[in-house]
Amino acid sequence: MEQQMKQIKGGVTAAKGFEAAGVEAGIKYQNRKDMALVYSTAPCRVAGTFTTNVVKAAPVLWDKEIVENSPFAQAVVVNAGVANAATGKQGMDYCREEAKTASELLNIPENAVLVGSTGVIGMQLPIDRIKEGIQKLVAAKAETLEAGTIASKSIMTTDTRNKEIAVSFELDGKTVTVGGMSKGSGMIHPNMCTMLSYVTTDAVISKELLQEALSTSIIDSYNMITVDGDTSTNDTCLVLANGLAGNTEIAQKGEAYDKFYEALHFVNTYLARQMAGDGEGATALFETTVYNAATKQDARILARSVVGSNLSKAAIYGHDANFGRFLCALGYSGVQFDPEKVELFFESKAGKIQVYKDGAAVDYSEEEATKILSEPEVTILVDMKMGTETATAWGCDLTYEYVKINADYRS
Amino acid sequence: MEQQMKQIKGGVTAAKGFEAAGVEAGIKYQNRKDMALVYSTAPCRVAGTFTTNVVKAAPVLWDKEIVENSPFAQAVVVNAGVANAATGKQGMDYCREEAKTASELLNIPENAVLVGSTGVIGMQLPIDRIKEGIQKLVAAKAETLEAGTIASKSIMTTDTRNKEIAVSFELDGKTVTVGGMSKGSGMIHPNMCTMLSYVTTDAVISKELLQEALSTSIIDSYNMITVDGDTSTNDTCLVLANGLAGNTEIAQKGEAYDKFYEALHFVNTYLARQMAGDGEGATALFETTVYNAATKQDARILARSVVGSNLSKAAIYGHDANFGRFLCALGYSGVQFDPEKVELFFESKAGKIQVYKDGAAVDYSEEEATKILSEPEVTILVDMKMGTETATAWGCDLTYEYVKINADYRS
Repeated sequence: MEQQMKQIKGGVTAAKGFEAAGVEAGIKYQNRKDMALVYSTAPCRVAGTFTTNVVKAAPVLWDKEIVENSPFAQAVVVNAGVANAATGKQGMDYCREEAKTASELLNIPENAVLVGSTGVIGMQLPIDRIKEGIQKLVAAKAETLEAGTIASKSIMTTDTRNKEIAVSFELDGKTVTVGGMSKGSGMIHPNMCTMLSYVTTDAVISKELLQEALSTSIIDSYNMITVDGDTSTNDTCLVLANGLAGNTEIAQKGEAYDKFYEALHFVNTYLARQMAGDGEGATALFETTVYNAATKQDARILARSVVGSNLSKAAIYGHDANFGRFLCALGYSGVQFDPEKVELFFESKAGKIQVYKDGAAVDYSEEEATKILSEPEVTILVDMKMGTETATAWGCDLTYEYVKINADYRS
Repeated sequence: MEQQMKQIKGGVTAAKGFEAAGVEAGIKYQNRKDMALVYSTAPCRVAGTFTTNVVKAAPVLWDKEIVENSPFAQAVVVNAGVANAATGKQGMDYCREEAKTASELLNIPENAVLVGSTGVIGMQLPIDRIKEGIQKLVAAKAETLEAGTIASKSIMTTDTRNKEIAVSFELDGKTVTVGGMSKGSGMIHPNMCTMLSYVTTDAVISKELLQEALSTSIIDSYNMITVDGDTSTNDTCLVLANGLAGNTEIAQKGEAYDKFYEALHFVNTYLARQMAGDGEGATALFETTVYNAATKQDARILARSVVGSNLSKAAIYGHDANFGRFLCALGYSGVQFDPEKVELFFESKAGKIQVYKDGAAVDYSEEEATKILSEPEVTILVDMKMGTETATAWGCDLTYEYVKINADYRS
């Protein structure tokens, strides 16, 4: 019997043939690394999902073109500090210059270079520093796990911790690895995919199935998190598959595809959850699971409505068992239901308590409820009593610190 | 020639035959008035609009029944502190007890008594104190302008100022008056009507046209404001028309209806704008006008998306000319447009400045932009260049104080 999927150390360099680097390019921040490179020694099939915002950053347009039309991709160059969004024709020209610089140094085609940017909208990239940064990145790239970790730290903006994960599983006696890194803390309300997320794998899989696996996975991972309801202009999730694991190509649905999907979805869900818990100013990961909903889509909408509600988020920050706010957010989600039938529970490591039933408050202990809501990870459980579908959404609390970060983000 | 509409002193008692009162009933707050009464000496035709939240507070259900099926209404009893929402059958029984008490004391039918509640969701009304409050209200009611002001103060929760307005105009040589009061500061994202708003008029107008005027007016008044994106369970807007002005009945569309509509819409817009500017913790009224949109609905959606964006609200608080956030919020609104064509401006008493054009930042003065954004009322102007439709939405900035108020609202 083949082994089950297991979590292993590392991130984007965990899979065979992937290298990474992070360097100080002086884009905006002082004394920290702010550019990253992910590079594959072999050409990769690539799948991508991008923001649905009408205002798309230049790197989003550039990467979309490559995902759709390039025969393969082999490198991703990312900078933090400036988003290269709302930058017009100049912004697109700079994407091309980035790709050209990397292409010459790495000896790969220009249209095999993906680019990513995150930071302030409306500013042009300091292109000379970007180009110097690419030179440093190419010189520094390495296949070590540490190199992947450095890359994941270099793309942070207001993130307080880097986000990376890797898993492996067996296929045809071969070990297949899926690893990834992401950044995202504010302007997080993905609608297609979140801020920036890069996943690498050595699996051999057709481009069509790679895209299908990604497009399916994001629905219940990145698209189920929110920090502030603001869908970014730069949301990008890319998966690069270089095929070096040597498994029989996954070219149709079946057991092998399911295993790959499980690994990819685990990585995506982990990275998404990390982003929610590291939301700007957050002190708690705020999870909502809706079950027994009439349809899967209803369950998703209801769960997202609760974690996206400012008043619910503020109640979590205050450890306040103000269940009316969660109920209210269910009520304005757009999903029809009978408020008399719904039941609400609070749950965390400190315990589980029912607070609402038969259209009114249950006689619960406020003290116990407050204790449950004071943990760093809290869950609101909602039993809709309408069907069998479940969905989970992740957000964070709304704090003074969120306001502080965003009242003077640019200064 | 008849006189134009003019603003006059007062609120709900400005129109002929309306009396009001506010008293201390000890519902939740100490040392402040927390119950209000609006009473008409003559029976009123009544129109109403209510929250679209699936979770509807008991008073919403009670009032909806009266607006739809009662031959007339003559009184409104309102309390602050407890919302009587998520209170099940008990909550409905308490509405009936309130109406019964008022009906006996005022000698009017039970189904002529409207009720309203605002405050914490999930708690039952302290019905004995409510009933004592109604006795005090009936004893205190008066037709003075001051009585209207006291009533408007008695329904405040986290509001920092009371909200009332009155206008009058001439019709058939008779003076017709429309006055109103409202409360609302948090959980404000009306979708049908806002928190609590009561408008009185002595106009003679058919019930059908009274409802039509109200239903039309709320679209561009209450439904265009947001404080926190949370659509309340209690949103209620009622208009009571007692007909004492003695004008010829407004029974069809035409000049008289237009004049009445203008007055009603002025009152509604004023009260809505006041609520936005007095949003919980707000330091500024944040207005967005979208013009040259393809359709009226597009203009409304775009304007609401900007004033509802947490990141835009935080930028206003920080007086930060971070125009990318406003552009981003337009982009995820759901309306399709070409970001290269849109133009953005900031405007306030301190001046007007263009910040975005041709897909990129205009070379504007940051200092001047910050000065413009430091006023207590700031406007973002958006030229869509797609058509001729305009809409304005109102919100407020997102501040530490909002978080503080909502992290421990119940304590």
